Amino acid sequence: MGRWDPDAQGRLERAALELFAEQGFAETTVPQITKRAGLTTRTFFRYFADKREVLFSGEDDMRMALAEIIRAAPPGLSPMNLIEHGLNTAATTIFEPRFQDFRSWRAVVATDEGLRERELRKQQLMTETVVAALRERGLDEQTADLIARLAGLVLQRAIARWVEQPIANQRLVVFIHESLSQLRSIVSPASTAPLS
Amino acid sequence: MGRWDPDAQGRLERAALELFAEQGFAETTVPQITKRAGLTTRTFFRYFADKREVLFSGEDDMRMALAEIIRAAPPGLSPMNLIEHGLNTAATTIFEPRFQDFRSWRAVVATDEGLRERELRKQQLMTETVVAALRERGLDEQTADLIARLAGLVLQRAIARWVEQPIANQRLVVFIHESLSQLRSIVSPASTAPLS
Repeated sequence: MGRWDPDAQGRLERAALELFAEQGFAETTVPQITKRAGLTTRTFFRYFADKREVLFSGEDDMRMALAEIIRAAPPGLSPMNLIEHGLNTAATTIFEPRFQDFRSWRAVVATDEGLRERELRKQQLMTETVVAALRERGLDEQTADLIARLAGLVLQRAIARWVEQPIANQRLVVFIHESLSQLRSIVSPASTAPLS
Repeated sequence: MGRWDPDAQGRLERAALELFAEQGFAETTVPQITKRAGLTTRTFFRYFADKREVLFSGEDDMRMALAEIIRAAPPGLSPMNLIEHGLNTAATTIFEPRFQDFRSWRAVVATDEGLRERELRKQQLMTETVVAALRERGLDEQTADLIARLAGLVLQRAIARWVEQPIANQRLVVFIHESLSQLRSIVSPASTAPLS
C-alpha cells in the first residue's frame, strides 16, 4: 500500500464497483471506497475527479482500441462489412473477455440518471472517435457519420441483450449478427426475400 | 407581472435562452434570468428545478407529440415508410415552424458538456416514448426498438445539417429525405442500382 502501488487505480475501481453494486451509487462515499481498497482519499483524487469518473476511467483506452480496430481493418470492405468486421473484432477483444465486469458495470449505471447521462456522452465520444478513424480511411464526413452511428446502434442493442444473460451462454458476436440482420431486414425488406 | 402571469414560464425561457447565448450558460445566474424576465426567483423555481432545466422544459410536450404522430399514422406502413411518415410529420409540425429557436437552442447546448449529456438523455427518453407508441401498434419489442433508434439517428443527422444554415433555405424534410436515402444505400447498396 502507498503512493507507488502500481495497481492503486485498479483496486479503487474494483472497490468502487463492488460498493456501488452492494449499497448503491448515491449511498457510497469516496472514503468508503478508499477504505475498502486500503488506500487514502488523496490517492483516490490522484486518479479520479470524483466517484462518477471511477466508472468511466477505461473510456480513453476503449476509444483508442476502437480507432485501432478501424485502422487495421482490411481495405475495400463495403460499409456494412466494415461495421460487421469492426464490431466482431471489438466484441472478441474488448467485451467478451470481461462479461461479468460489463454486466455489473451496466447494472450500476442503470440505477442513476447522472450515470446514464454520462454513459450516453461516452457513447457519443466513441462515435466521434470512430468517425475520425473512418475519415482517415478516406470516407467522406456524411458516410463516416452514418456508419459510426449505425455501428453504435447495433452494438448497443447487442450488448443490451448479451448482458441480460446471467452467464455468457451466448457470445456477443451472436447478438451482433442478429442485430445486423434485423437492420438489413428493416431498411431493405426485399433483400430478405428468397433469391428466386 | 406576478404569480398569475399566464406566460411567466415562456418569458423565463426566452430570457434564459437570450442570456445563455449572449454571455454563456455557465456565466448566467438565475437572478439574471428573472431580472431580464421581470419576475422573481421564487417564480423561477416554481417552474424549473435549476437553470439547466429551463432548456428542457418542452421535453414532455415533445414526447407526447411524437407518440401522437405514431398513433395517428396510417395502418399497414412498412417500417421504413412509418419512419419516413413520422419524421416528416414531426418536421412540419414540431421543428420547421421554430427554426431560429431550435438553432439558438442547439448552439447553447453545444457549449456545455452537462447540457450535451442532458440532451443525449432527452433523446434517449424520446426513443423510449417512440418504442412504447410503436408497441401499441402491435410491433414486437426488438422491431420497435430498432425503428425508434433508426428514426432518432436519421432525425439527429437531418437536424444537424438543417441548423447549419443561417436561415432555413432548405426545409428539414429535405435533409430527412437525404439521410434516409443514405441509410438505404449503406445498409443495402444493391437497392440503389438502376432497376434494369
